Amino acid sequence: MDKIQVLDHGYIAWIEFWGSDQQIIESARMSTDKGFLGWGTDENPGDEKLLKYLYQNKHSTPFEFAGLTIEVQAPIFVFREWHRHRTQSYSEMSARYTPMPNLNYIPSVERLMIASSTNKQAGSVKGVNPLTNNEANLFRINLRDSYETAEHHYQLALENSVPKELARLCIPVGRYSRMRATTDLRNWLAFLTLRMDVNAQWEIRQYALALHKLLVLQFPRTMALFDGEK
Amino acid sequence: MDKIQVLDHGYIAWIEFWGSDQQIIESARMSTDKGFLGWGTDENPGDEKLLKYLYQNKHSTPFEFAGLTIEVQAPIFVFREWHRHRTQSYSEMSARYTPMPNLNYIPSVERLMIASSTNKQAGSVKGVNPLTNNEANLFRINLRDSYETAEHHYQLALENSVPKELARLCIPVGRYSRMRATTDLRNWLAFLTLRMDVNAQWEIRQYALALHKLLVLQFPRTMALFDGEK
Amino acid sequence: MDKIQVLDHGYIAWIEFWGSDQQIIESARMSTDKGFLGWGTDENPGDEKLLKYLYQNKHSTPFEFAGLTIEVQAPIFVFREWHRHRTQSYSEMSARYTPMPNLNYIPSVERLMIASSTNKQAGSVKGVNPLTNNEANLFRINLRDSYETAEHHYQLALENSVPKELARLCIPVGRYSRMRATTDLRNWLAFLTLRMDVNAQWEIRQYALALHKLLVLQFPRTMALFDGEK
Amino acid sequence: MDKIQVLDHGYIAWIEFWGSDQQIIESARMSTDKGFLGWGTDENPGDEKLLKYLYQNKHSTPFEFAGLTIEVQAPIFVFREWHRHRTQSYSEMSARYTPMPNLNYIPSVERLMIASSTNKQAGSVKGVNPLTNNEANLFRINLRDSYETAEHHYQLALENSVPKELARLCIPVGRYSRMRATTDLRNWLAFLTLRMDVNAQWEIRQYALALHKLLVLQFPRTMALFDGEK
Repeated sequence: MDKIQVLDHGYIAWIEFWGSDQQIIESARMSTDKGFLGWGTDENPGDEKLLKYLYQNKHSTPFEFAGLTIEVQAPIFVFREWHRHRTQSYSEMSARYTPMPNLNYIPSVERLMIASSTNKQAGSVKGVNPLTNNEANLFRINLRDSYETAEHHYQLALENSVPKELARLCIPVGRYSRMRATTDLRNWLAFLTLRMDVNAQWEIRQYALALHKLLVLQFPRTMALFDGEK
Repeated sequence: MDKIQVLDHGYIAWIEFWGSDQQIIESARMSTDKGFLGWGTDENPGDEKLLKYLYQNKHSTPFEFAGLTIEVQAPIFVFREWHRHRTQSYSEMSARYTPMPNLNYIPSVERLMIASSTNKQAGSVKGVNPLTNNEANLFRINLRDSYETAEHHYQLALENSVPKELARLCIPVGRYSRMRATTDLRNWLAFLTLRMDVNAQWEIRQYALALHKLLVLQFPRTMALFDGEK
Repeated sequence: MDKIQVLDHGYIAWIEFWGSDQQIIESARMSTDKGFLGWGTDENPGDEKLLKYLYQNKHSTPFEFAGLTIEVQAPIFVFREWHRHRTQSYSEMSARYTPMPNLNYIPSVERLMIASSTNKQAGSVKGVNPLTNNEANLFRINLRDSYETAEHHYQLALENSVPKELARLCIPVGRYSRMRATTDLRNWLAFLTLRMDVNAQWEIRQYALALHKLLVLQFPRTMALFDGEK
Repeated sequence: MDKIQVLDHGYIAWIEFWGSDQQIIESARMSTDKGFLGWGTDENPGDEKLLKYLYQNKHSTPFEFAGLTIEVQAPIFVFREWHRHRTQSYSEMSARYTPMPNLNYIPSVERLMIASSTNKQAGSVKGVNPLTNNEANLFRINLRDSYETAEHHYQLALENSVPKELARLCIPVGRYSRMRATTDLRNWLAFLTLRMDVNAQWEIRQYALALHKLLVLQFPRTMALFDGEK
């Protein structure tokens, strides 16, 4: 299983691909009752040209004939954003059934020292200035402290026979969870368009960038068109 | 705006209905090119009979011609389960843009003293026995303590100019958030079927029961069929 | 019921709206925990500005909190294109259950004399030149003849006790059918974007234009933004 | 490409599978943070038991982690029913762009001599009695005649430079078209449930039965559970 590390304890791993750039062409060619004719050469581009035409004119159905299943470990607040994409299928670890492992996200000093995004609303309540090195370190110390307190209460509740589904109430949204996700290429590209955007939160952008790497391996021609548009 | 209180700080409020039991019949009648013929009487049931036939034979498309928009305030862990329903539209308060109000869910002693569900996996790590009164009270005290620590760290981070989108990492999943949700009646019924079930977590069941009350007001005949099946 | 005539025997009629431009704003404002603040004036645009921001930055979820149910009478080949939009709900007259009324689409001479679209593939097998007046009239006569032959066989089969679901095999795709369709505003706009386009077939474009008129009545501000983008 | 003949000129061919019975288990196991444990034996059933539990309790998400892409040749009236399934992706031959091949469905005498289904509404206008041998043959002769007339008008229009998108108006719904279709296993099973049903039209049932054969090859354990339920 190929795995790309993301953040301090997260990853994206590929489970299975289906379809290919060529199958996208074959599906598109149903409309004119022909098959794949070959990618052609630089002088004589062949189906390279058709793929470009489909992509640029938003003929998106053929891109539904390929897809990818992945496994993701990410903090809960990242999954909260991820799950708003309603065209993917999700199977996630459940804190109702399993005590959650003690893995929590602590942003690096470097991450804290960049303004989180161009989006003013996502800035601090005082403005969008990045933190200083000292402020960043202070936040990390306090955050670790907060995580430890939550974990302490969580374990105490579990030991005291509180049902897992209630013991979890104190778990912070910075805690890691794990899931499998699957959808077709069209919908993965829609995900990347929104989540690689500069307005997306930095953390989910790191996952989108890792996913992008996996897609390039299997769908190099489609991803070249995707990259060309940005 | 009609509002039903749920849990200690939550609610479901109705924003807008569309369609009706009669419109469901009219949509179904498209297939045979007729309209609504009247509900009939007990001796001569008329379209009451058709509605029953549609419902019991899972002819579900006509139930997509009616719907409901609501506003919901619920803890994050409830929203995490809710958002797995991918056929609804959601617009939720965002902790990236707004400091979250300090409202947290503390289960009542009564709630803690019932075994959460028949589902063994959702029980405590030691088994499915309910808590005693003392154990329940102890958990409530510890939980409040844990919430207060998290709130303290959250406010500190906000004051220290940490971007809102990162300051939130310590927020527990027991904290309340707020959203609007909308979908058609077919998909609300699918939601109720899963979330009124005895295997659903008790908390989301309270929301499902409140939603059920709202649906009965607007779609009394369809909801009578739904209730008859349980 | 307001009805707009389309083609020779078709129409679009509105059955029910829900939501409004204002409700779109209210749904969007959930993210920052505020409500509708007023449309403002020309000098001080208020929520007019937010609606524009949402629309232009493709924040499309709020546009799912409004919608429209319509009734449509159109030829089968138009419905074949229409039903490729998988986010609408459809309830259509069924030739399995009801003998289809003898209504068939015959394009006008004017329609036949324009090149059907800029799309070369949709042209004649010899090229994209429009027909002459005489050629158009000849086609109309032959088409009527073909429709009459099909109707003759259809009625004969029905009289000879052939099941309706098989008697229909000879029915041409130019024959009218009828349906109800419903979806939210976001998805109606996606429909209009594809079907008002110059590459769409002229016939379905007439339906898209009629639908556009209905949407303007209920959602004037959103539709002004839609029109501004074209 | 494996191909199963259906009706007089149709077929279903498999293009690509993804996922497996085992992958369904792995996806389901995300909730408890475990993987595949082995199918077990008759005495000690292992994950056979979990698959059965998932299937019988309608835990359907794991079945979205597997799927199938097929190619189908079928009459237009079959595609009209097929396309009402809105969770599949379709890429179909287009009569706007390509003259349609002259392939038309003529039901066999045997098919005509069975009452089409238990559904009274789908019967003849006079009742549900099956046809006699003579009546069946007469229908076949008349239907062939009707198809030939339509084809004659179609070719005449194409020769007379009528755009392909309008020349097609006389094409009967018994004419064959061709498409690719893809979706996940959960949605293929929903398709089979509706289309293998005795109330489905006999023709689409033949396609559902062919599809069933393909699914058995790749997902034998899931399909055994599907079959066990019928």
